[in-house]
Amino acid sequence: MRDLLDAVAAGDIAPAAAEAQLRGYVTSDAGRFDTAREHRAGVPETVLAAGKTPAEVQTLVETSLAGTGRAVVTRADPTVVATLEDQYSEEAGTSMTVDDRAQTVVLKTDEFETPELDATVGVVTAGTSDAMPAGEAETILREMGATVSRTDDIGVASLDRTLDQVPQLREQDILIVAAGREGALPTVLAGLVDVPIIGLPISTGYGHAGEGEAALSGMLQSCTAMSVVNIDAGFTAGVQAGLIARQFDQIRS
Amino acid sequence: MRDLLDAVAAGDIAPAAAEAQLRGYVTSDAGRFDTAREHRAGVPETVLAAGKTPAEVQTLVETSLAGTGRAVVTRADPTVVATLEDQYSEEAGTSMTVDDRAQTVVLKTDEFETPELDATVGVVTAGTSDAMPAGEAETILREMGATVSRTDDIGVASLDRTLDQVPQLREQDILIVAAGREGALPTVLAGLVDVPIIGLPISTGYGHAGEGEAALSGMLQSCTAMSVVNIDAGFTAGVQAGLIARQFDQIRS
Amino acid sequence: MRDLLDAVAAGDIAPAAAEAQLRGYVTSDAGRFDTAREHRAGVPETVLAAGKTPAEVQTLVETSLAGTGRAVVTRADPTVVATLEDQYSEEAGTSMTVDDRAQTVVLKTDEFETPELDATVGVVTAGTSDAMPAGEAETILREMGATVSRTDDIGVASLDRTLDQVPQLREQDILIVAAGREGALPTVLAGLVDVPIIGLPISTGYGHAGEGEAALSGMLQSCTAMSVVNIDAGFTAGVQAGLIARQFDQIRS
Amino acid sequence: MRDLLDAVAAGDIAPAAAEAQLRGYVTSDAGRFDTAREHRAGVPETVLAAGKTPAEVQTLVETSLAGTGRAVVTRADPTVVATLEDQYSEEAGTSMTVDDRAQTVVLKTDEFETPELDATVGVVTAGTSDAMPAGEAETILREMGATVSRTDDIGVASLDRTLDQVPQLREQDILIVAAGREGALPTVLAGLVDVPIIGLPISTGYGHAGEGEAALSGMLQSCTAMSVVNIDAGFTAGVQAGLIARQFDQIRS
Amino acid sequence: MRDLLDAVAAGDIAPAAAEAQLRGYVTSDAGRFDTAREHRAGVPETVLAAGKTPAEVQTLVETSLAGTGRAVVTRADPTVVATLEDQYSEEAGTSMTVDDRAQTVVLKTDEFETPELDATVGVVTAGTSDAMPAGEAETILREMGATVSRTDDIGVASLDRTLDQVPQLREQDILIVAAGREGALPTVLAGLVDVPIIGLPISTGYGHAGEGEAALSGMLQSCTAMSVVNIDAGFTAGVQAGLIARQFDQIRS
Amino acid sequence: MRDLLDAVAAGDIAPAAAEAQLRGYVTSDAGRFDTAREHRAGVPETVLAAGKTPAEVQTLVETSLAGTGRAVVTRADPTVVATLEDQYSEEAGTSMTVDDRAQTVVLKTDEFETPELDATVGVVTAGTSDAMPAGEAETILREMGATVSRTDDIGVASLDRTLDQVPQLREQDILIVAAGREGALPTVLAGLVDVPIIGLPISTGYGHAGEGEAALSGMLQSCTAMSVVNIDAGFTAGVQAGLIARQFDQIRS
Amino acid sequence: MRDLLDAVAAGDIAPAAAEAQLRGYVTSDAGRFDTAREHRAGVPETVLAAGKTPAEVQTLVETSLAGTGRAVVTRADPTVVATLEDQYSEEAGTSMTVDDRAQTVVLKTDEFETPELDATVGVVTAGTSDAMPAGEAETILREMGATVSRTDDIGVASLDRTLDQVPQLREQDILIVAAGREGALPTVLAGLVDVPIIGLPISTGYGHAGEGEAALSGMLQSCTAMSVVNIDAGFTAGVQAGLIARQFDQIRS
Amino acid sequence: MRDLLDAVAAGDIAPAAAEAQLRGYVTSDAGRFDTAREHRAGVPETVLAAGKTPAEVQTLVETSLAGTGRAVVTRADPTVVATLEDQYSEEAGTSMTVDDRAQTVVLKTDEFETPELDATVGVVTAGTSDAMPAGEAETILREMGATVSRTDDIGVASLDRTLDQVPQLREQDILIVAAGREGALPTVLAGLVDVPIIGLPISTGYGHAGEGEAALSGMLQSCTAMSVVNIDAGFTAGVQAGLIARQFDQIRS
Repeated sequence: MRDLLDAVAAGDIAPAAAEAQLRGYVTSDAGRFDTAREHRAGVPETVLAAGKTPAEVQTLVETSLAGTGRAVVTRADPTVVATLEDQYSEEAGTSMTVDDRAQTVVLKTDEFETPELDATVGVVTAGTSDAMPAGEAETILREMGATVSRTDDIGVASLDRTLDQVPQLREQDILIVAAGREGALPTVLAGLVDVPIIGLPISTGYGHAGEGEAALSGMLQSCTAMSVVNIDAGFTAGVQAGLIARQFDQIRS
Repeated sequence: MRDLLDAVAAGDIAPAAAEAQLRGYVTSDAGRFDTAREHRAGVPETVLAAGKTPAEVQTLVETSLAGTGRAVVTRADPTVVATLEDQYSEEAGTSMTVDDRAQTVVLKTDEFETPELDATVGVVTAGTSDAMPAGEAETILREMGATVSRTDDIGVASLDRTLDQVPQLREQDILIVAAGREGALPTVLAGLVDVPIIGLPISTGYGHAGEGEAALSGMLQSCTAMSVVNIDAGFTAGVQAGLIARQFDQIRS
Repeated sequence: MRDLLDAVAAGDIAPAAAEAQLRGYVTSDAGRFDTAREHRAGVPETVLAAGKTPAEVQTLVETSLAGTGRAVVTRADPTVVATLEDQYSEEAGTSMTVDDRAQTVVLKTDEFETPELDATVGVVTAGTSDAMPAGEAETILREMGATVSRTDDIGVASLDRTLDQVPQLREQDILIVAAGREGALPTVLAGLVDVPIIGLPISTGYGHAGEGEAALSGMLQSCTAMSVVNIDAGFTAGVQAGLIARQFDQIRS
Repeated sequence: MRDLLDAVAAGDIAPAAAEAQLRGYVTSDAGRFDTAREHRAGVPETVLAAGKTPAEVQTLVETSLAGTGRAVVTRADPTVVATLEDQYSEEAGTSMTVDDRAQTVVLKTDEFETPELDATVGVVTAGTSDAMPAGEAETILREMGATVSRTDDIGVASLDRTLDQVPQLREQDILIVAAGREGALPTVLAGLVDVPIIGLPISTGYGHAGEGEAALSGMLQSCTAMSVVNIDAGFTAGVQAGLIARQFDQIRS
Repeated sequence: MRDLLDAVAAGDIAPAAAEAQLRGYVTSDAGRFDTAREHRAGVPETVLAAGKTPAEVQTLVETSLAGTGRAVVTRADPTVVATLEDQYSEEAGTSMTVDDRAQTVVLKTDEFETPELDATVGVVTAGTSDAMPAGEAETILREMGATVSRTDDIGVASLDRTLDQVPQLREQDILIVAAGREGALPTVLAGLVDVPIIGLPISTGYGHAGEGEAALSGMLQSCTAMSVVNIDAGFTAGVQAGLIARQFDQIRS
Repeated sequence: MRDLLDAVAAGDIAPAAAEAQLRGYVTSDAGRFDTAREHRAGVPETVLAAGKTPAEVQTLVETSLAGTGRAVVTRADPTVVATLEDQYSEEAGTSMTVDDRAQTVVLKTDEFETPELDATVGVVTAGTSDAMPAGEAETILREMGATVSRTDDIGVASLDRTLDQVPQLREQDILIVAAGREGALPTVLAGLVDVPIIGLPISTGYGHAGEGEAALSGMLQSCTAMSVVNIDAGFTAGVQAGLIARQFDQIRS
Repeated sequence: MRDLLDAVAAGDIAPAAAEAQLRGYVTSDAGRFDTAREHRAGVPETVLAAGKTPAEVQTLVETSLAGTGRAVVTRADPTVVATLEDQYSEEAGTSMTVDDRAQTVVLKTDEFETPELDATVGVVTAGTSDAMPAGEAETILREMGATVSRTDDIGVASLDRTLDQVPQLREQDILIVAAGREGALPTVLAGLVDVPIIGLPISTGYGHAGEGEAALSGMLQSCTAMSVVNIDAGFTAGVQAGLIARQFDQIRS
Repeated sequence: MRDLLDAVAAGDIAPAAAEAQLRGYVTSDAGRFDTAREHRAGVPETVLAAGKTPAEVQTLVETSLAGTGRAVVTRADPTVVATLEDQYSEEAGTSMTVDDRAQTVVLKTDEFETPELDATVGVVTAGTSDAMPAGEAETILREMGATVSRTDDIGVASLDRTLDQVPQLREQDILIVAAGREGALPTVLAGLVDVPIIGLPISTGYGHAGEGEAALSGMLQSCTAMSVVNIDAGFTAGVQAGLIARQFDQIRS
């Protein structure tokens, strides 16, 4: 960094160029957000609706739409969805996509161009209770531009269903595997495929180590190799897989 | 119980018969232990060597041998084994069997007749680290008279090994399945066989939820049905399976 | 498995026969569920109503009835029960049984034949708070075909009531013992009867180690031998006892 | 307190009398310890040997002997005992009592008069592993002057032994009941006797909720009424029972 | 117990007398509850209203009133209180006492004679948030017949208020000291008074170790001696103090 | 203290003066609260609205206003705010300040003089979710008289924003730094500024170690030096910083 | 799978080809291990030395060397290293590499060809205490064929050192970031680089949430996106990064 | 920061001046450590001896002495102390100070000038077990230049000793209060003095919430205001108090 400061002082490098080089931590009053957004290309600004009023969500959506041409809302309950539909479903110049199972809403201006990555991410669920976080991951991945291949309900309690899907899972660049209760699915899959797996523990289960703690613990202790995100952290799993997908895309292109 | 007291009072039933009927909670100064031992027929008196000096273990073994004709020692480290070998390996009238992996020692007088049950229990391990508690279960089961079928190292990381063993596991009357780390093996097996499974979590693993907690949590939260014992509780798993085996034996005979 | 593949290749064994032999993990698009159902003979498909809307429960019930001739609903609150009663209580060809304490509903077509097992399972509760999970176990067991002997409110705070029931408990093939708070009942009973016991901890109690954690811990640490299921896991306890009851039945028949 | 200050100011009460009245929190440089000691009459100054070198223990013993005529050492391992025996076993004017099971050592000058309380405390253990903390309680109680009635090895796994002792336990003024593993003994006894019970959980057991946590949880959640001390806190249990015994003694005398 | 059975058989003792002697664990179909009630003389049958509908509470109250002449209801919210007032406030022959802070309701028939014990129990609170469990203890103690001396709001944050009350607290036979947050009050008092203290941790506080866990931990780890009950367990604290008070009463009378 | 008592007895010091000297723990029936208030000069009596009815809050506000000329309410939800506004917004002689984000309300009589301290405290937040506890700290600090410099939304996810603020943060006397999720902000700042930092963990985050536990743990384990308060304990952080600010003020004046 | 069985039956596909296609779960007695090894190409068989005697380690090393031409030993303490050096350092045809900080030993026959992947993995540590698990990851990655770029001691306590390394970290394909204590480094880096990050929490730290729990919690709760492995799980982090590196390599080649 | 870059580019500010202004995050290859050291003026580089060999400690001491003229070692066991004494006790030009209770060693060259701060910090302990972490805080504070006033053994079990010290504690600028077990001392003191308190929980205590967890929880939940450091974190408490003392010093000078 000292070299850079010396170069700026010597006039060998313009302050703006220094900014570009230091991208992550330079800033200006006007351009700060844009720079940051550019920096994280493809990771959409996301509005977490949980804990906010529908009016608060709508305000944040409006800001995001105006600033970036897109707004992604997660953990949107029916009231939030209805509020957004009232506002945007008939609005010219804006399209709106609701995924009920994922509890996500995506709004885009007609001008917005969703990025496209030459990479496929498999999103796998053990059971129907895993749909929300898995769908959250799927939504983020699609908005980051990855191709998503979804495979549902292949929990190890019916191992035949699991094994049936192994061949197509081997075709993916990377897998997100969601599972609740004891969370054994990613462990079993990691023994069957060479594709890297991100384990996504789900807050199902009750009693001792319920609410996803058993699934998280099992994935962290897995006798097969994987990395893990927090319980129900579908957004995080999606972004992490999306960042890896971007690397694949950059190599391919 | 009042009926019984009335009957005893009326002379319709002898105190000794009342004792027999109330088996679990009558007692006499001299016969108390014997009755209890008879009551739990087949569950051998066991000496837990952990936390005791070799001398203390030997004293308890002596008492057990003298009283019941048999002594079963668990968690016997090499020093304890050596102490017992010094004393008993050459002693006429007493046989001694050491299982190094199980850390168990069984001593019997020549007169002792080990019970025989017409029932087979499968003892299954996921990996080599499960050997001690699984062996503990196996020793207890053999001393209770059950036939034990041991299947080792079929953890789900190599699912082919797991699946290879399914046909023979289906032949058992009941299964004890030991697994550490994430403890997925009993969950996977319970989806493949109809034989009832007792999950035995093992204290392997490190970091978060290590020392068997992840395995225990996963078995309790399993999406397939099983019952569970505490971490490393091979003795408990063995006795529980043995009690069920006795029921099988009583029906068969 | 390689032998089997060789045999199929050689034409010595038909693919369908291979399927039958590999029962647990073969599948076809149309028949997959049927095979699985057959595989787990007697374990009824169950709809967990908790966390679902009445409409969702009804849809699943309809599917289960159509596919198997039976639907078992657990954790059914009064709204769910009312919804199902509206639909089915007057419907010809379908019978409906509601157990309020167990919060279970069982629906069957007239053609459905409930299996019958020659085995009796004792379901025991320490107090009235244990009724729901114990009832869940009872419902599952009855639907699996076992004879259920229910014994309520014999917690150790009134030890006389506990001891009164010991003789009849000794008559059962296996016992499920439900207890909350400190969960001492299965420990005390396991010292009095030779019948194998499955401990079912209940989510009563408040403060430190409340919500059933003390009961679960106590059963796992019990100085008498038993196996355990998760807190409130009446369904799991019922299936585990039912699987053992099936073994009894198969030996007897 | 203001009234007292006013009275002292008015000369109606002497400072020393004010001190006596405020006993717990007055002090002088020279007399501070003596007052405190008098205040807690009967609760002996105790040296916790765990974590100290034998030399440090000996120094503290010397101080205690010189100051109070008595020294009570807890958690004294064989090395500490040997060190003290070297010093005091032959020393004129001092007697020394070692309790190996309790790991306590009591030393007294010939002049020391142990207090005597007209009250009996029952100290009960479930098993042999409870001997150390129970013995610690017993030693403290004897030094506080209570009569101790010890009852060992009546854990609920052999309920007949438990019930045999109920009549004599009903004779005690108060009971300390030590139990490890699941800690069910005080719960069962509290349903059988009206004598108040102090539960003393013991750090036995392994795996989940081991090291006494299950016993503590169970006693706190007990469906019968008792109060509890921390795991292995035999000293605390003894002092608490001793303070109650003093109240009994004061009423009786 | 064998001696007793022999004596009954010999006719030396009547079955009814045997019942009386074995009081805790004999029983008959009709008289079982009465015997138990007699056994625990003074510990009133209590209805825990939490988790029950007002109608269920009323049914239990009716049963208790009919059977024992008294009903004690704890954790009674305003709806439960209103329901009971509708039914009983105007009913001839029955009196009803509501303690809003304690959330308790006591109903008695005119014939019921509340026991009287010659003993005083101090019930102390650190702050206003401790009122409910402390009041619960007070209600139970009054119904057991003890004289209750209540001292409120003397938490250590204003140590002068604490110290002001020390003289009168020294007059009590035993103290129940309720405190939430860090729960320091019983520790401080136990250093100032010789009266035995039962610590009652309260579920106040938020964040780490909130909900009373810090208070419970602090009381268990206290550097001064006390015994403890579970978080918010005012009923248990009251019964435990009441049992000790009965011992005081029996000595005094 | 003995010296003081001697002096009072000798008439050398008046009881009132003794009171003044012993300030923290003297008391009188009428003046007790005033003394305490004086003692903690500047720490306002605060009404925690959470868990109280609006009517209860209003009563406490009335008492506080009457007694001290000021009332500070924390955790005031909209209903509480509306109730207070109904009562006080139009009331002559009383001013009312509501901070919606902080959920605090401050009421003062016209006569009340807020103290002024010559010290500035920086209150820093990582994100918008930290607003309530941070605002609570700010309100208390302003009422204690400190100058508060607020800096919001400089979480480390956008490190440029963090670094931009470092120069002005170095100007503060002390910093309160609020952060949820992983709570990294105070760790990063403590490496950049020499100003002492009080970490304020916030109850954001879900799944494992959610509700602020990860943030608290991270601040306690921080590789840079800071002290910490409990999760969401904005009031405590404010008072602690205020007490330090008072020391600064006393040195400066 | 049914399709495959049909094809094998029809002779359209050879059993061996079916084996190849089903790779993960076919097997033969002789070839089972080889197939599995081939399946996981690049993930070396690893001997965990912790908990094994030097002799046991040596036996496993011998087997691994004979079977695969390579042996990787992790958690090798000086005694294990010395034992292996005695045996192999002079042995013709075998090379041995010891990494003291990583506690790893790699042995290879001269014939063994280490795979090479066209991908670079950055392995980053916050401090010197992270060296062992980070080195474990590095060793595994090198043996899987990835190029490893190591960057040490850039913890956020000296943020300048962190920022200095950002430019070169942006050049990597993927990063493993090891950190103990509060584990803030991966959170800070994930805000500065777009390269995907695998967080590796380290078991440093003491007191509350010590032994790596704070670091794990912080990484799971991170406000920037990453995936995580268990505490000290350097092996798992290395394999996971290696699997991703293989994908990069396959795209590139 | 952009303004600064612009100014450097314009030549209005020299790179070195920019470095000075950005102090925390600028760096050069040669000067990096020095700058950081200057930045944290007064916080001595410290060598944590725990987990290191005596030789490793000595190497680090040598480096620290050479680089800064001082070396501070914490958690130095007798072996480490002996090693350092062998090396330095006779060495000309170097002085060495050992604090056995604190387990700290300070070495200085004759040229080293310890800073002096015009501020006093009270370091208070509840009991003798608190000596090590409290001593660690004291050593750091002395090396940072603060005047330390040490007050030992004033735990609340003997409240008179606590109250005796209140007047002198009120004279300090800030207090560090160390306490183990239930950790009540800082809570009691914070109600008696207006001096800000940093709570230092100590890892004493056994059983439930032992190892300092109860003390930490109690201090976090304290009903009086304080801030807290991690269990046994004497170093952190010392630095935090030292940073505040520096602020005092800067105001005073």
